[in-house]
Amino acid sequence: MKVVRSIAEVRQQVKQLRQQRSQGGGDAVVGLVPTMGFLHDGHASLMRRAKQTSDIVVISIFVNPIQFGPNEDFERYPRDEQRDLALAEREGVDVVFMPTVEDMYPAPTKTHVTVAELTDTLCGASRPGHFDGVSTVVTKLFNIVKPDEAFFGAKDAQQVAVIKQMVIDLNMDINVVACPIVREVDGLALSSRNVYLSAEEREQALVLSRSLEMIKQRVIEQPELTAGDIRSMLRSEIGTSSIAIIDYAEIMTFPQLEAMEDRAVVRDVAGEVIVALAVKFGKTRLIDNAIFSPSTLPQTVVHA
Amino acid sequence: MKVVRSIAEVRQQVKQLRQQRSQGGGDAVVGLVPTMGFLHDGHASLMRRAKQTSDIVVISIFVNPIQFGPNEDFERYPRDEQRDLALAEREGVDVVFMPTVEDMYPAPTKTHVTVAELTDTLCGASRPGHFDGVSTVVTKLFNIVKPDEAFFGAKDAQQVAVIKQMVIDLNMDINVVACPIVREVDGLALSSRNVYLSAEEREQALVLSRSLEMIKQRVIEQPELTAGDIRSMLRSEIGTSSIAIIDYAEIMTFPQLEAMEDRAVVRDVAGEVIVALAVKFGKTRLIDNAIFSPSTLPQTVVHA
Repeated sequence: MKVVRSIAEVRQQVKQLRQQRSQGGGDAVVGLVPTMGFLHDGHASLMRRAKQTSDIVVISIFVNPIQFGPNEDFERYPRDEQRDLALAEREGVDVVFMPTVEDMYPAPTKTHVTVAELTDTLCGASRPGHFDGVSTVVTKLFNIVKPDEAFFGAKDAQQVAVIKQMVIDLNMDINVVACPIVREVDGLALSSRNVYLSAEEREQALVLSRSLEMIKQRVIEQPELTAGDIRSMLRSEIGTSSIAIIDYAEIMTFPQLEAMEDRAVVRDVAGEVIVALAVKFGKTRLIDNAIFSPSTLPQTVVHA
Repeated sequence: MKVVRSIAEVRQQVKQLRQQRSQGGGDAVVGLVPTMGFLHDGHASLMRRAKQTSDIVVISIFVNPIQFGPNEDFERYPRDEQRDLALAEREGVDVVFMPTVEDMYPAPTKTHVTVAELTDTLCGASRPGHFDGVSTVVTKLFNIVKPDEAFFGAKDAQQVAVIKQMVIDLNMDINVVACPIVREVDGLALSSRNVYLSAEEREQALVLSRSLEMIKQRVIEQPELTAGDIRSMLRSEIGTSSIAIIDYAEIMTFPQLEAMEDRAVVRDVAGEVIVALAVKFGKTRLIDNAIFSPSTLPQTVVHA
């Protein structure tokens, strides 16, 4: 495994591996897993998925300052380079790209990639400028590494929707693969930010996955359930935690992220929907979601 | 010469040529000349410059709707496919990419690439959204053709500055080459829009190149000349045309496009400056410019 820190070096490494592994056959496939480090098993699942289809697996570790708001946790975002490298090595990663902020932004960027509409809601509404920072840095990483495919975790579902839209709109020749959320055995979605949680907060945070499971079950059981019903049920369920402060608890179409009216019957949505949560426990804001296709859910059979 | 109309086809053609021409040596270099068609000798000069360093020369012909304002000339922008193809053939172009609007924008793009600051002045101020349209479509063309180098005419000097900034900021692995303005023998800068001019307007439009020549001469002769002096001289000279309506007549640093105070002495600028004009003759808005390095201009020797 090569660990490279400069843009020139990672370009050189990827080019060399691409040449080596393209010999005697078709072109070698380069897969990129962009991360902010402090890697956990969710990230590892992306690397494992990458290895299934990519001949060369590159991961980037970069805590991107321009996607953090002024009062967010950029400075205290957890970092552990040695542990990250050990995890990447264990997963058989070929190249780890760890640039400095100065490498990525030698001067404040004048250029931004912005995706409209999809970024107006959910985390985009709570974190103004966040997704501009994400789409800009992902474009930079794509231009540096030139991957054929890139892997993102479905926990950041809005990020996945934004990146997919960007790739389509800008004709990037890259296959964007969304990988399922990885959870602890008790249901908590893995996140680098879980390290911020106290024991009490971590216990209370289980309300997120519990609410999502409940909603999926209710949609199966009650075919007439509306978006408004779901919003109420989410608020009521999350409200059972004494410390949870809801940022949003929403149901929308996916990946369009279009609002659903309160009276809209969820089962009538032809495509997918997302039930998306952002909730603060103490100082820590966690997100979680469930994406499913209501029209293809099993119907509960009512026995006579 | 291959003429291709779909994105998939141009990707396929470039890939194939790249493989063919890379055999037995280093990687073949792909050069892109993005144009809006109605090609003239200015465009031909870009193709000739491309042939000097590119093994494969691709030109795109696409009148990009999103860089035109609602009251601009998108609909009536001149088009002549047969003549364009004959010129490209004559210049030894390998691939002409002529997509339709539906190919490039199957749905309205939600994604835009924006370059701040550089786009606030000159044409950016007169044509809101214009440069967002330019940087977005150029990003798309770059992602489709994947060139190693791209060639732009210096007549659109602000466009060159914006594209160069974008390429740096987004780490695009592309060498952007600005090529000198090509002029008619009487000084008129070549432009597809010159076809709009009546004989009288064309005659009057010579005031643009005449003004620029005069300014360069004056900076040589008068070392103490200020930006304010130059603005006055430009307005007075262009004012000699009875029909000229000035949009802007400016001097700025280049490529930063930073404003110069009226009292700033031009000779004191360490880098380059641009004298930039946008002037309407009848319904036709023409632009022209001169870029030079004042500190390296010859000094007029005063003989005793």
